[in-house]
Amino acid sequence: MRENEFLQFVYANAGAAGSAVEIPVGDDMGAVRLPVVEGAAGALALLKIDQCLDGVHFDLAHHSAAQAGKKAVNRCLSDCAAMACLPVAIMISVALPREGPGSGEAFARDLFLACRDAAGIFNTALVGGDTAIWDGRLVIVVSALGRQAGAKPVVTRAGAKVGDTLFVSGALGGSILGRHLRFTPRVELARRIAAAAGEGLHAMMDLSDGLAADLPRLCAASGVGADVHTGNLPVHEDAWTLSEKDGLPAALHALIDGEDYELLFAIDPEAVPGIVNLTEVPLTAIGTVTEAASGLRLVDPAGNAHPWPKGGYQHQT
Amino acid sequence: MRENEFLQFVYANAGAAGSAVEIPVGDDMGAVRLPVVEGAAGALALLKIDQCLDGVHFDLAHHSAAQAGKKAVNRCLSDCAAMACLPVAIMISVALPREGPGSGEAFARDLFLACRDAAGIFNTALVGGDTAIWDGRLVIVVSALGRQAGAKPVVTRAGAKVGDTLFVSGALGGSILGRHLRFTPRVELARRIAAAAGEGLHAMMDLSDGLAADLPRLCAASGVGADVHTGNLPVHEDAWTLSEKDGLPAALHALIDGEDYELLFAIDPEAVPGIVNLTEVPLTAIGTVTEAASGLRLVDPAGNAHPWPKGGYQHQT
Repeated sequence: MRENEFLQFVYANAGAAGSAVEIPVGDDMGAVRLPVVEGAAGALALLKIDQCLDGVHFDLAHHSAAQAGKKAVNRCLSDCAAMACLPVAIMISVALPREGPGSGEAFARDLFLACRDAAGIFNTALVGGDTAIWDGRLVIVVSALGRQAGAKPVVTRAGAKVGDTLFVSGALGGSILGRHLRFTPRVELARRIAAAAGEGLHAMMDLSDGLAADLPRLCAASGVGADVHTGNLPVHEDAWTLSEKDGLPAALHALIDGEDYELLFAIDPEAVPGIVNLTEVPLTAIGTVTEAASGLRLVDPAGNAHPWPKGGYQHQT
Repeated sequence: MRENEFLQFVYANAGAAGSAVEIPVGDDMGAVRLPVVEGAAGALALLKIDQCLDGVHFDLAHHSAAQAGKKAVNRCLSDCAAMACLPVAIMISVALPREGPGSGEAFARDLFLACRDAAGIFNTALVGGDTAIWDGRLVIVVSALGRQAGAKPVVTRAGAKVGDTLFVSGALGGSILGRHLRFTPRVELARRIAAAAGEGLHAMMDLSDGLAADLPRLCAASGVGADVHTGNLPVHEDAWTLSEKDGLPAALHALIDGEDYELLFAIDPEAVPGIVNLTEVPLTAIGTVTEAASGLRLVDPAGNAHPWPKGGYQHQT
C-alpha cells in the first residue's frame, strides 16, 4: 500500500459529519469554526496530528530524547507554518519502551522537557498528554491547535492560480544528514509572508516528503499544473555532500529528498516585490503555475521540458 | 516509574507558555481560548490526546480493526464527556505494522472507517490524520477538539465542595471481559447532567483507571476528601462474573478495575433531584465529599470506615 493511495481513500471517505468543518482532511491542517455565541460566526480552530516513530523518523540508537522530542514537535509546528496560522497549544502522546533505548524515567523526563521547550519557543502551550509503557519502540505523537493570527488569512493548498510564481524558502535536499532533526519550523516566516502578500498569497504547504512529491499535491488541490526551472532550485550544501557520496545529481536530491520542512507557495506576481528580504531566510522563485492540462514539468536552463521525477519520498503506508 | 509520579512531574513542569490557557494539563482535557476578534474574549477550545496500543489497550490476536478503532475514538470522546463538552472534531494518527496482525490495506481501511463512524455517532468530524508503516505493533492515537455547548458550563475535576454528593453513572467493574471495547462514551448523559444541574455540578471526570485510582485524582484537584459507601457501589454483573473466577469480592472489582468509562461527579445535594431519571443510564449516589483532612475512606454498611484500597489500575509508565 502506497501512502498516496491510502490518503485518497481517506479523503474520499472522511465524510462531512459536523457542519463546523471549514477545511476538511487533506490539507496541512484541518479546521473547524467554534462559536462563541451559539449560532454566530466564531473562531477558526486549525488542527494537526503527526507521529514520530523510532526507526522511521529518528533512531534512538543514534539520537537522544531531546532530539526526538524536538523533531516531533517541530514537524507539527511546520504544518502550522504551512497554513500561516499561529500555533496556540500542543498535546503529546508517548508510548515508552519498557526496556532498551527510550526506557526509564530520565528519558521520559528529557523527552517531555524537550517537547515543552520546542513549543515554548513559539509561545505555544503544552495542554495535554498521554503516556504508556509497552514492549514496542518509542512512539511520539504530537497534536497542534492553531488559530488565525488577527486579520491575516489562513492559507491552504487549494488556491494557486495560473500565472502565479512558485517559491520555496531556504534550500532543499540532503536533510537526512542531520537537518531533519534540527530545522526551524517556518512559523514566523509564513506569517510574515502572509501579512506582506495579503490576498496575493494563493496557496502554501510545507515540504515534508520532498518537492517532487509535495508540489503535485498542491497542484492537485488547486487544479493546476506547474513548470519548475531546475536551474533555479536552491540546492542545499547537504545535497551536494550526498551527491558526492551516491553519485546522484545534487539538484535531484533537492527535488526528491524528504524532510526539508521549508515552505512551498504560489503567489501573485504582483505581490512578489512585497516579500523580498522579509527575513534572513532566502526565498527563491522556482517556477510558474500553469494550466492543469500541462501537468508538472521540469524545465532545464536551455528551456527543454523534462517529465516530472517519479515518487519523491513516500512513507510506505 | 509509576504513572502518577511521572504525571506529577509533567504537571509541575508544563509551564504556562501561552496566555490563552484556561485549563492546563492535568484535567480530562486541556483548554485554551481562541479569539474571534483580536483582544476580545473568544471561543473555548477543549483538547485531548489519547493512545491505544496493540498488546496494551487491545490485542489484535483477538480483536478486529473495527473494535480497535472504535475503542480508540470512544476513549477520547469519554474525556469530552468528562468535561460535559461537545466533541466537534477528531484527528487520528496510525502506525501500521508492516507484517502480521494489523498489516495490509484492508485492515487500514476498516480501521479508518470504524474511527470515522464512531465519531460520526456524535456528529464529530474527522478532520486530520497521519499514517505510517513500521516494524512495530499497531498504534492508534486520537486527538479530540471539544467546545462549550451553548451556555452549559464546562466541568473540571477541581470544583468539588465539602458536603457534595458523589455519583457514578452505570455500573462498575469487570470491563476487561469485553465492555472496554464496546462502551458508549457518556457524552449525551454528561451534557444532560450539566444542563439539569447547572452551577450545582461542581466536578466531574470519567473513570478510566478505576474508582480507587480516579477518585483520589478528583479529590486532589478539588482539595477535598471523600467517604464512599461500599454498600452503594453499583457493581456490574461482569464484576460478579470475574469474582466467581478469581475469588476477589465483586465490590472490590467495582473499585479497582479500570476502563469503566463511566462518569464520576460531585454535585450539590440541592441539585440532586434535578438529575434523577435523566436518561436510561442509572446514576448512583456512592458517597459524600468530606474535608481534605479526612482523606479517602470506604464506609461499610455497618458504618465502619476502612482504608482506601491501594492502587487501582495504573498503566506502568
